[in-house]
Amino acid sequence: MNQPSSSQPAPDQSGANQSGYGKPPEAVFDWLDEKAEQRRAAGLVRRLRPRPADAAQLDLASNDYLGLARDKRVAGATAAAALRWGAGSTGSRLVTGTTELHGDLERELAAFCGTEAALVFSSGFLANLAAVTALSGQGSAIVTDKYIHASLIDGCRLSRADVAAMPHGDHAAIAHALATRRTERALVVSDTVFSVDGDLAPLPELATACRQHGAGLLLDDAHGFGVLGAGGRGAVAEAKLIADPDVVTTFTLSKSLGAQGGAVLGPRRVIRQLIETARSFIFDTGLAPGSVAAALAALQVLRDEPDLAARAVDNAATLCTALSTAGFTVSTPAAAVVSVRAPSPEAAVAWADGCRAAGVVVGCFRPPSVPDGVSRLRLTARADLTEADLAKVVEVITEQAPPGAS
Amino acid sequence: MNQPSSSQPAPDQSGANQSGYGKPPEAVFDWLDEKAEQRRAAGLVRRLRPRPADAAQLDLASNDYLGLARDKRVAGATAAAALRWGAGSTGSRLVTGTTELHGDLERELAAFCGTEAALVFSSGFLANLAAVTALSGQGSAIVTDKYIHASLIDGCRLSRADVAAMPHGDHAAIAHALATRRTERALVVSDTVFSVDGDLAPLPELATACRQHGAGLLLDDAHGFGVLGAGGRGAVAEAKLIADPDVVTTFTLSKSLGAQGGAVLGPRRVIRQLIETARSFIFDTGLAPGSVAAALAALQVLRDEPDLAARAVDNAATLCTALSTAGFTVSTPAAAVVSVRAPSPEAAVAWADGCRAAGVVVGCFRPPSVPDGVSRLRLTARADLTEADLAKVVEVITEQAPPGAS
Repeated sequence: MNQPSSSQPAPDQSGANQSGYGKPPEAVFDWLDEKAEQRRAAGLVRRLRPRPADAAQLDLASNDYLGLARDKRVAGATAAAALRWGAGSTGSRLVTGTTELHGDLERELAAFCGTEAALVFSSGFLANLAAVTALSGQGSAIVTDKYIHASLIDGCRLSRADVAAMPHGDHAAIAHALATRRTERALVVSDTVFSVDGDLAPLPELATACRQHGAGLLLDDAHGFGVLGAGGRGAVAEAKLIADPDVVTTFTLSKSLGAQGGAVLGPRRVIRQLIETARSFIFDTGLAPGSVAAALAALQVLRDEPDLAARAVDNAATLCTALSTAGFTVSTPAAAVVSVRAPSPEAAVAWADGCRAAGVVVGCFRPPSVPDGVSRLRLTARADLTEADLAKVVEVITEQAPPGAS
Repeated sequence: MNQPSSSQPAPDQSGANQSGYGKPPEAVFDWLDEKAEQRRAAGLVRRLRPRPADAAQLDLASNDYLGLARDKRVAGATAAAALRWGAGSTGSRLVTGTTELHGDLERELAAFCGTEAALVFSSGFLANLAAVTALSGQGSAIVTDKYIHASLIDGCRLSRADVAAMPHGDHAAIAHALATRRTERALVVSDTVFSVDGDLAPLPELATACRQHGAGLLLDDAHGFGVLGAGGRGAVAEAKLIADPDVVTTFTLSKSLGAQGGAVLGPRRVIRQLIETARSFIFDTGLAPGSVAAALAALQVLRDEPDLAARAVDNAATLCTALSTAGFTVSTPAAAVVSVRAPSPEAAVAWADGCRAAGVVVGCFRPPSVPDGVSRLRLTARADLTEADLAKVVEVITEQAPPGAS
């Protein structure tokens, strides 16, 4: 539609049976340069920064909450599995892409968390697309917190359901939307720990609203699993919802477990629905055996070291207190994510660059990654950070702070 | 919307401020059992079949076209990389999830194929979502072949563009849709080798149509890369389109390369657009280092053994001829995929089960994986199949054929 309000240039001519948009091949993607210039002007340039295997800096930017990605038990499991099972899974999970290792991981995830069943995906993004679409569909309603992860939002867009996004953290608005819906089936979708500020959704209230109104509850525990709950069993387990027949949990294998991939956990009939209908499961290659084995090994570490999760939470609390005391606007961490407000996207980039140069790598979140448009530094308080590490982080962030940051 | 035509049961009551859909938690997902029963009645049950590390059967079901997934050079590279770089990439590609290995793979993919740049994703599905959405958007048109891969279709659904799907293989219809569109920007989207029947899209005609009408051309070469073109450089390279400024190519790292992940190749400004705007790139964890290293090692194998690709194509032609001679309805393979028509979904399952019991694993494609609704056996002619292997495959498929299969 060539609407008057569009930012596209008007065509030179129009009408049926001729496009009127002829241009040389090298000009077809000229519009990408215009978009890039708009992003540059808005301070939203992003670039990849390949890191070496042995970076000298202290990492507070990754999601490797428990420091397991480079743990020898976990990385060693990848190596052994690749040599035994091959580098790739070779096909869709429904064809040749399910090895016995995949079955072992799915049984162990379900056993560890206390659900009937689990299903592993090659990415948490794909797990979320699958869970949202397979549990909704045309003629159903989805009610979400408006700050849910991009993959859940894209799942909603693909779902053909009636989708309503409520203000962040507003469980009463979610209950009201459920009460006034005009479809029988409904699904409430939320993150547990929100990725930007690390705050926790009102899980008991969401569950109550779902039960009052006959809705299912889908929770993305990507930033809670491995960090919250007994032994790191996650925020859904901590809220005593994980085994409930109307609750479905997703998370990644690439954060606390240090591997790659995603998982959906819940009632057996939910997992069957995913296996038989979810496009992002059926039409994707299964997770590589090495990543499956890494996740299995990491779960064993969680069983062997049940205090690991609490260390990440303690480190986040320490960082929060110290940075607040230093005068910054800091989120109160529910798990291991601590965010520090920056005055602008450009200031956030300069601040993060300064920290990197001073030996501390922090996340730098700008639009569109921040749903409220406020740029931030984002720190992940890994379980294996020492007191000296934490002191250095606070010192560097303070030294590098731009004007207006506190 | 509780429309009269809906298959949902009507609610007992309705009206504002009460949902009227109260039910016990254990009944919330009852509808999933009804859906499962419908699939069972239609012969569309799917189940996972975990395979052992050393299966006795001959594999003609995987997409491991060159037999590289278990090649020691490839699997060994995974093992070494996991030990050096860790089991996971630890974050988004924009934060900590880009290692120097990722940079190496992207440079090598671009160099091997002859494009300005390349970008690696954790899954081919996510690469396709990214490419379609980042190169279209509101106020643009997408014209597709209607049999494109599910991930491209989902990309179209997410794109907010005006999407039109043309009959399979009908480049004139695509040209007509481009000519009569009412938006300036347009993108034609197609598979090169279609995954079900292994047939080739009319690439020169698609490129001509795009050039006549000022459209970009996005080609998914998942089943062509590694199999077609000089040394396995793919169908887009074979058509001499890959380096063109208006062409973008995607493929997986999980088929011919035996690893995991996906890639987008094209002009530098396309890759920049993906890095800075594609949600399935920005909001996903980077591909695990072990899978990155496996793809790099597999590319080296392609350079070292430039005849490998042709062997897969030759084996497919051999299978096609032998199965046609045996009286089956067989697709003419453009690459390494050979499909054999089955009389019904149930017959396809029984046929595939019979083959498996007789030592040959074949793919079994049924709705919704087959866009035309016709169930098939799907064979992938790996480069490392011997003459004896091929003879056994033909013998077993013939012996196990159901009534009405020829």
